[in-house]
Amino acid sequence: MQFRDIYCGEVKKEMVGQTVTLNGWVQRRRDHGKLIFLDLRDRSGLVQVVFNFEQNEEMFARAEEIRSEFVLTVRGQVVNRSEETINPKLPTGEIEVQAESLEILNKAKTPPFYIEDGVDVDENVRLKYRYLDLRRPEMQQSMIMRHKVSKLTRDFLDGEGFLEVETPMLTRSTPEGARDYLVPSRVNPGSFYALPQSPQLFKQLMMVSGAERYFQIARCFRDEDLRADRQPEFTQIDIELSFCDQEMILGMMEGLMAHLFEGVLDEQIPTPFPRLSYREAMERYGSDKPDTRFGMELKDVSGLVSDVDFKVFKQVLSSGGVVKGINATGCGGFSRRELDELTAFVAQYGAKGLAYMFVEEGGVRSPIAKFFSEDVLSEIVSAMDGKPGDLLLFVADKLDVAYHALGALRLHLGERLGLIDKSKRNFLWVVDFPLLFWDEDEKRYVANHHPFTAPRDEDLDKLETEAQNVLAKAYDLVLDGVEIGGGSLRIYRREIQEQMFKLLGFTPESAREQFGFLMDAFEYGTPPHGGIAFGLDRLVMLMAGKDSIRDVIAFPKTASASCLMTQAPSEVDARQLKELHIALDVPPKA
Amino acid sequence: MQFRDIYCGEVKKEMVGQTVTLNGWVQRRRDHGKLIFLDLRDRSGLVQVVFNFEQNEEMFARAEEIRSEFVLTVRGQVVNRSEETINPKLPTGEIEVQAESLEILNKAKTPPFYIEDGVDVDENVRLKYRYLDLRRPEMQQSMIMRHKVSKLTRDFLDGEGFLEVETPMLTRSTPEGARDYLVPSRVNPGSFYALPQSPQLFKQLMMVSGAERYFQIARCFRDEDLRADRQPEFTQIDIELSFCDQEMILGMMEGLMAHLFEGVLDEQIPTPFPRLSYREAMERYGSDKPDTRFGMELKDVSGLVSDVDFKVFKQVLSSGGVVKGINATGCGGFSRRELDELTAFVAQYGAKGLAYMFVEEGGVRSPIAKFFSEDVLSEIVSAMDGKPGDLLLFVADKLDVAYHALGALRLHLGERLGLIDKSKRNFLWVVDFPLLFWDEDEKRYVANHHPFTAPRDEDLDKLETEAQNVLAKAYDLVLDGVEIGGGSLRIYRREIQEQMFKLLGFTPESAREQFGFLMDAFEYGTPPHGGIAFGLDRLVMLMAGKDSIRDVIAFPKTASASCLMTQAPSEVDARQLKELHIALDVPPKA
Repeated sequence: MQFRDIYCGEVKKEMVGQTVTLNGWVQRRRDHGKLIFLDLRDRSGLVQVVFNFEQNEEMFARAEEIRSEFVLTVRGQVVNRSEETINPKLPTGEIEVQAESLEILNKAKTPPFYIEDGVDVDENVRLKYRYLDLRRPEMQQSMIMRHKVSKLTRDFLDGEGFLEVETPMLTRSTPEGARDYLVPSRVNPGSFYALPQSPQLFKQLMMVSGAERYFQIARCFRDEDLRADRQPEFTQIDIELSFCDQEMILGMMEGLMAHLFEGVLDEQIPTPFPRLSYREAMERYGSDKPDTRFGMELKDVSGLVSDVDFKVFKQVLSSGGVVKGINATGCGGFSRRELDELTAFVAQYGAKGLAYMFVEEGGVRSPIAKFFSEDVLSEIVSAMDGKPGDLLLFVADKLDVAYHALGALRLHLGERLGLIDKSKRNFLWVVDFPLLFWDEDEKRYVANHHPFTAPRDEDLDKLETEAQNVLAKAYDLVLDGVEIGGGSLRIYRREIQEQMFKLLGFTPESAREQFGFLMDAFEYGTPPHGGIAFGLDRLVMLMAGKDSIRDVIAFPKTASASCLMTQAPSEVDARQLKELHIALDVPPKA
Repeated sequence: MQFRDIYCGEVKKEMVGQTVTLNGWVQRRRDHGKLIFLDLRDRSGLVQVVFNFEQNEEMFARAEEIRSEFVLTVRGQVVNRSEETINPKLPTGEIEVQAESLEILNKAKTPPFYIEDGVDVDENVRLKYRYLDLRRPEMQQSMIMRHKVSKLTRDFLDGEGFLEVETPMLTRSTPEGARDYLVPSRVNPGSFYALPQSPQLFKQLMMVSGAERYFQIARCFRDEDLRADRQPEFTQIDIELSFCDQEMILGMMEGLMAHLFEGVLDEQIPTPFPRLSYREAMERYGSDKPDTRFGMELKDVSGLVSDVDFKVFKQVLSSGGVVKGINATGCGGFSRRELDELTAFVAQYGAKGLAYMFVEEGGVRSPIAKFFSEDVLSEIVSAMDGKPGDLLLFVADKLDVAYHALGALRLHLGERLGLIDKSKRNFLWVVDFPLLFWDEDEKRYVANHHPFTAPRDEDLDKLETEAQNVLAKAYDLVLDGVEIGGGSLRIYRREIQEQMFKLLGFTPESAREQFGFLMDAFEYGTPPHGGIAFGLDRLVMLMAGKDSIRDVIAFPKTASASCLMTQAPSEVDARQLKELHIALDVPPKA
């Protein structure tokens, strides 16, 4: 076998006259009488190869057998294309290679879909034949980009003195958090490992160990019901450092992002990134991961309508709810049907209705206008920044319903009205998250991030008395409305960690049972520390301009957590189960 | 909290007069009347800090409370030590820091062992308090070295055009190979994922996908009974490339090793590495991973003793066995007891006995000398390169027993006699492995490496007729008698892969059931490809001069596959098992 001396996509006009050896796959064959044209493809791109009957009949005959996706070695001279066959769309479009020798390394059946970008083929077929799907240039570019993001992340963090440390995959199950994937132990009958949901405990223990700066590009696992952008296993850029505060971490991570976007996409990202408190993000955008590439901010008109004799608003306000709205700028022409659609849309988020007002010259047109005085209407229009031709939309509901419904409606309208400048990259830190939220079902506090997040120093004395008002030293990084990372300063003193476990409903015994080793560790000189984790899949997806993380994962699983290529998961031998001390407990099918 | 502006170990004589801020742990406190000396430690090393009662009584009083492993911020001026207190053993031994401010960031209980190198403490205690064990400088250096090896591996492979691609951890169980760790699927009742024993199939599929050059530093899992140098999860530098031959791979990997040893240890490694065929390695060293840092090679004397009337040798030779020996140079003074010990040693490897001859001036002293003529004895001594004062040791047995017993005996004596030059690094390729071996228990051929290894082209026609003589395009990299990597060219044509599965006892149906997707993939234009995988744990262990891979793994497991720190594996809730459609099937304790 002869090996390439150059990649297909790198053959250049300057090489005319030189002889090159190429390895690659046949993109297509075209026959023109006594000439055969092949496009030969490798990871770098395409080049055209010509076989000439007049020059070598035997080789020409072999070339006639070649079909798409055959694997070849071709050796030949680089020549200029004739004027009329120059292809300006192709980097190698000015030249071609005049074949002098040909070796067919392997044959190929006709693939189930054509190997090119933008193929219209069912995703299940793409996943079944993933090895062919990954041959498509756009998928190869995704894999290359993912490699680059990982490489540049490591370069940056190595430069900042971070050590990559591999933490265990066979860990201990902890009930707090999402559902674990379990692994039965053969050696310890009746016991199970859990695959890590994140290396959280281990990275904190690395801080206790004095590693000072840790990172890991780590596989994590969550056995959740899968949504479009979730996978049972996903990859996290996991970072932790000691002797730091929030400013230090945020600044360093801005440096990482700037490094990645410059190195991978040649984009200059301005730093520092803007910051919003969680509270402000919710009030202005109805979301803790707002897309700030467009306006249409939420306004609160509760104060303006508190005296109005409109039953719906009155009831909501009297039971502690709010009336909030957004200005659908320029949507004054929306039809009844369109309004119904918007009402149905917000209903998905629990909103019981959607009130609307069309702003017109000199007034407001609305079925509920009659309940309002002219003055109040005019104050509302002014508060909503309404101009003639605008449509004002209101949700009167419990605060969180109003946030979520209007936050979603804002995104929906932003997309629909083309308000989002997709050429922008808006990075945003959301900070000052509440430490806890009250779980009405379980009648207890639940950690907003996780049980190791530190409360703000100034809120420490509220922990006993008004825990719901305690803010955390926690931060999320949002890019264009997608949360790409989150982290916090951690609790590093045992007494505060114990107080936290208590708030979360642990007894001293259950806390000890679950996290005893961590609480022990905290007694031996734990440095102040904190960290962050980025979702690599989502980050690469955004950088590659893809809509699904499946397009930046080599071998993803479906929404039912299966691999269509290997048919994993699968049944296993009874002997294997016996060795693992487990038996199937599958209910009979209905 | 104040943050360091310099690491402890980096405070230099040139900084005398400057004020520095340090963060770190207290190594020890020493009181000298109105002076308190602290050694403050961080990842970089130690520096001495002095508190002076005369200068600040309040701070001095707080310093008196400080104990080992407290976490501090100290700010102070760098000053020269007085002549008599200079410590030439410490990089910072010429200076000290005169404390001007002190903040105690965290307290510490007395650790269960002292945080310093070479502590004599039970490994189980070290593993239970791993976060303290990892604070010891030698463990920190191991973690730093591991990070560097990974980083430089990635730099090198990135430079050679390899893409790091993450392959799934939740894969499909395959019965060929070691025992799988299984993960029950909640969504697919009765089905299981397997954790990968290696990314073998996925990396080959990446080659089918045209990625051309793949690598991954990949976690792998094998549920085996653990030996001293095994872990249930381990890390592999996994590499695969297309359009290559063995020479290309071996040369590139020599480049990788040279890059690592230069970058991490500043050692120049001469390349190319020597090569031995499997057959020659076995014949000369009785091992397929020979330590070539010393001689004492095996010699075959079967031909010389074939006519001797010594029953033991005769029976062995007539039943197809061999008589092989090594020369324990200079061991002519070994006692009867020492010889008995050696006999017991080889018995562990199945040898039924150990014959010996002391070489003396003008003859041989041995209980079996009487069976041999003077001529034969002299020929044997000459063949064994025996000199007066040497001890010749012989095993007469089946070929593989003779190899293993004498190979092990050679290592044992080499170590005991101090023949191994530990300052040497002997890299060695072992090549031309047999493709298959015959499994007498299962009465079938088993792949020596794995079922995807390509036979040598010149041996293809032997596959049908004399499979046991077929050699593989396979290679192992050995460093100082430890196998650190192995790989092969792969089969890339479906018909040969099918022939291989048949030889391994698969029916067409069972091959299809297990590997159908791979065989399908091979039909769509698979390039010639091959690869290698290195054991990262072992490689780092050798580079760090450690005896156990546990010393280069942050959180290793014990021989019973447990984590003594987190108590994984553990029992889990009945609810969790129910969700996973499994039940315990643990036999009652005897």
